[in-house]
Amino acid sequence: MIDFNRQDFFPIKKKVTKDSIEELLKDIILDKKNLTNIIISNICSLKNIFNKSILFINKNNEKFIINNNSVLTITDSHNRFSNIIDDPCILVSNLGKSYNLLANEIFFHEDNNNFNDEFKFINNSYFSKYSHIHPSSKFGNNCVIGRGVKIGSNCIIKNNVIIKNAILGKSVNVSDSTTIGSTGFGFDINNMGSNDISPHLGIVYIGDYVHLGSNCTIDRGKIDVTYIGRKSMLDNMVHIAHNVVIGDNACIAAQSGVSGSTEIGKNFIAGGQSGIAGHLKIGDNVVVAAKSGVTKNIKKNSIVAGFPAIDIKEWKKNIIRNRKYK
Amino acid sequence: MIDFNRQDFFPIKKKVTKDSIEELLKDIILDKKNLTNIIISNICSLKNIFNKSILFINKNNEKFIINNNSVLTITDSHNRFSNIIDDPCILVSNLGKSYNLLANEIFFHEDNNNFNDEFKFINNSYFSKYSHIHPSSKFGNNCVIGRGVKIGSNCIIKNNVIIKNAILGKSVNVSDSTTIGSTGFGFDINNMGSNDISPHLGIVYIGDYVHLGSNCTIDRGKIDVTYIGRKSMLDNMVHIAHNVVIGDNACIAAQSGVSGSTEIGKNFIAGGQSGIAGHLKIGDNVVVAAKSGVTKNIKKNSIVAGFPAIDIKEWKKNIIRNRKYK
Amino acid sequence: MIDFNRQDFFPIKKKVTKDSIEELLKDIILDKKNLTNIIISNICSLKNIFNKSILFINKNNEKFIINNNSVLTITDSHNRFSNIIDDPCILVSNLGKSYNLLANEIFFHEDNNNFNDEFKFINNSYFSKYSHIHPSSKFGNNCVIGRGVKIGSNCIIKNNVIIKNAILGKSVNVSDSTTIGSTGFGFDINNMGSNDISPHLGIVYIGDYVHLGSNCTIDRGKIDVTYIGRKSMLDNMVHIAHNVVIGDNACIAAQSGVSGSTEIGKNFIAGGQSGIAGHLKIGDNVVVAAKSGVTKNIKKNSIVAGFPAIDIKEWKKNIIRNRKYK
Repeated sequence: MIDFNRQDFFPIKKKVTKDSIEELLKDIILDKKNLTNIIISNICSLKNIFNKSILFINKNNEKFIINNNSVLTITDSHNRFSNIIDDPCILVSNLGKSYNLLANEIFFHEDNNNFNDEFKFINNSYFSKYSHIHPSSKFGNNCVIGRGVKIGSNCIIKNNVIIKNAILGKSVNVSDSTTIGSTGFGFDINNMGSNDISPHLGIVYIGDYVHLGSNCTIDRGKIDVTYIGRKSMLDNMVHIAHNVVIGDNACIAAQSGVSGSTEIGKNFIAGGQSGIAGHLKIGDNVVVAAKSGVTKNIKKNSIVAGFPAIDIKEWKKNIIRNRKYK
Repeated sequence: MIDFNRQDFFPIKKKVTKDSIEELLKDIILDKKNLTNIIISNICSLKNIFNKSILFINKNNEKFIINNNSVLTITDSHNRFSNIIDDPCILVSNLGKSYNLLANEIFFHEDNNNFNDEFKFINNSYFSKYSHIHPSSKFGNNCVIGRGVKIGSNCIIKNNVIIKNAILGKSVNVSDSTTIGSTGFGFDINNMGSNDISPHLGIVYIGDYVHLGSNCTIDRGKIDVTYIGRKSMLDNMVHIAHNVVIGDNACIAAQSGVSGSTEIGKNFIAGGQSGIAGHLKIGDNVVVAAKSGVTKNIKKNSIVAGFPAIDIKEWKKNIIRNRKYK
Repeated sequence: MIDFNRQDFFPIKKKVTKDSIEELLKDIILDKKNLTNIIISNICSLKNIFNKSILFINKNNEKFIINNNSVLTITDSHNRFSNIIDDPCILVSNLGKSYNLLANEIFFHEDNNNFNDEFKFINNSYFSKYSHIHPSSKFGNNCVIGRGVKIGSNCIIKNNVIIKNAILGKSVNVSDSTTIGSTGFGFDINNMGSNDISPHLGIVYIGDYVHLGSNCTIDRGKIDVTYIGRKSMLDNMVHIAHNVVIGDNACIAAQSGVSGSTEIGKNFIAGGQSGIAGHLKIGDNVVVAAKSGVTKNIKKNSIVAGFPAIDIKEWKKNIIRNRKYK
């Protein structure tokens, strides 16, 4: 897991205390426990626990108890709430709303109207004053490099590229008009629209020697990191959603997409116009044929095809069986 | 229907009279009727009739008679022509050609080589002198906001965004490298190429609280309005073609596309990489599964999947029946 | 075939001699023949032989012998090597590696960290000092026009468009945020990552009266030309990979893609979200239905649908046969 300091990317707006949290959530608090004089200045997930953070736990994760009394758990699970002994915890009626209220209270971020970055114009591109660029890396025209972005040595960033909320290793190539680190697609079907949008507060990590094509989109993680492993190669118009993890040496052909929170092993190969649903686990050395749609977890060393994607040999047999030429 | 003044977006080149129209169309006029001293300065469709406009009617619409003697109907339907009594009407042999000739005669537009917009450079983006931006809205770098564009309060427009021929409500978020209001795909298979291209003269309307992802394209209407209802949310790389109408609260996942002139009701949900063919009617509360291709009208409250898309339960049964494991 | 001078687009770094080639390839040379005092300053393919060039021949092409003693053939085919009599030839153990070493030795190119273009800022866009633009053509804002690019008369290039390594005819329209001439997806599954990337050294040719939509990507050829025939029309988010040849009057709907090295005849029509695999031959007057995936060569005058795409009548029969209602 990549370590990063969230405040490098966007400033903290306000540390919150027991009292301000209770006030903020007053319409949705059902119960509370062990709320000592904690001060919260960060947010975390079960993947990566930070001190002085809020942790949001839904029913799916209710069994994971972390023993850390500097972490405030907010949950909508009565079971979870009951099972906690020493750690601070708040039980709420609406977890999504509690997330939105607290994230917007604590952080400035780019979907807040009051977040400002400050740019220098250098060689026809805009660089945040708070970005960290290795001097050996090269940039085309009309790029925008946002606050906190770190770019390693010998990278080639072409024209009209946007990089925000991201850390790039060394020798990364990013082709024209690609967008890295913009907000993922966070929606709540019961609360649609930009005014109810879930703040996305994570980053993108791009490993060494990665090559990204033109007009791609790699969304930032929601809380953690969207990760592209070293030496991976993405063709044009590839979409990688928030929280996705892709292992080293991936090779993803044009117009393919990976939906949110899916985790893919090493040496992944995907043909063009393929799609991977969200929240899946794809093993090492998996091959997905062109135009396939993967809807289930895939074991390592598998080759799949079709939609819903199945073993490629089965898929071919089905194709033949379901065709009759007179 | 959104009311808009076409001349806000691009200037009128020339008002046309009875005489100049007859001269312009002389090679394709078959007959004419009631051509009094009309002066034409606009164009309209059956959806939204304007005075002093030309209206183009093909055989599919020949039954709709509007009683307005300031509207000049151009038609290739002999039936329509015969049935008109009082209103001005011209019967032509080639409706597409008459459209192109008249639209290019009356209007400057961005696919004319002689259309010029004038820009101010403010905070690293270009704003047309003739755009109207609420001062509370915020813009990233390298944006281009064209003539006539109206942007409401509290919008967040990120980097490298193009907005032309469009009206945005309040609190609209537009993510990086998205293009709004560019020309739709108007072609005539018998007259290919940029020199025979149909002028697109409509606009885009984006409702309040809409969220648009990165690297999307929302094309302007041909004559009327491409419409995205309030609180709708589009993920990255979504394509919305000309004249499409999407109701409130739509949720469209990445890499999906809606073809020209399709009208979709409220609370639409579409999975990633789905496609909707053109000229369809999709009811309220319809769900389209990921990777589906919708080729027919869909009744309200339906859930469809597959290509061609059918009821999702049927689709699942078909999937199972058409697979045999050994 | 379009004639072009590679050095217009990126400067030659170094001419190579017999001695420097032998030194460079010393780890992978298996044998050599007729290496006289040749001086190499270019690269070519079997499609278009140039004097003083290197030609790379793999096993698939081993039978094509060109009789030109100013062309140095590098091959990994023992047969080919044996069959050459007079011409200079080197037999190597790793053809991809020999290509990468020689291409990087001879040429500066944009995936080299040491390639620099020089730009003038004119009317809000960047133009290489070494580009050739007809004065009647018009440009939006934030465009980047690279070294060697030629643009004919009366073109309309909209906003945030990137054009590199390309020749455009007259009256070409390019809509917003489209990328022309960036590097294609060249990868070697055994040598992944940006440090082992195959240099792409070819160009894009766009014929007269072509119309390109928004947010498209047209990749440069690897050695030769990616070609879009005159009067062709591409909708938004269409991807055309390296070395693709598309005949005149093509009409390709949104979100479609053509993979590398496929050659398509005249009057091609493709529906939205369709895909064509690489290295195929598609005849004249072929129609590919929306969402199809073409995996095999297609004869002229065919209409195909589905994935894998088959004759559209068969496809429709299969659809009906494989559905049972009740």
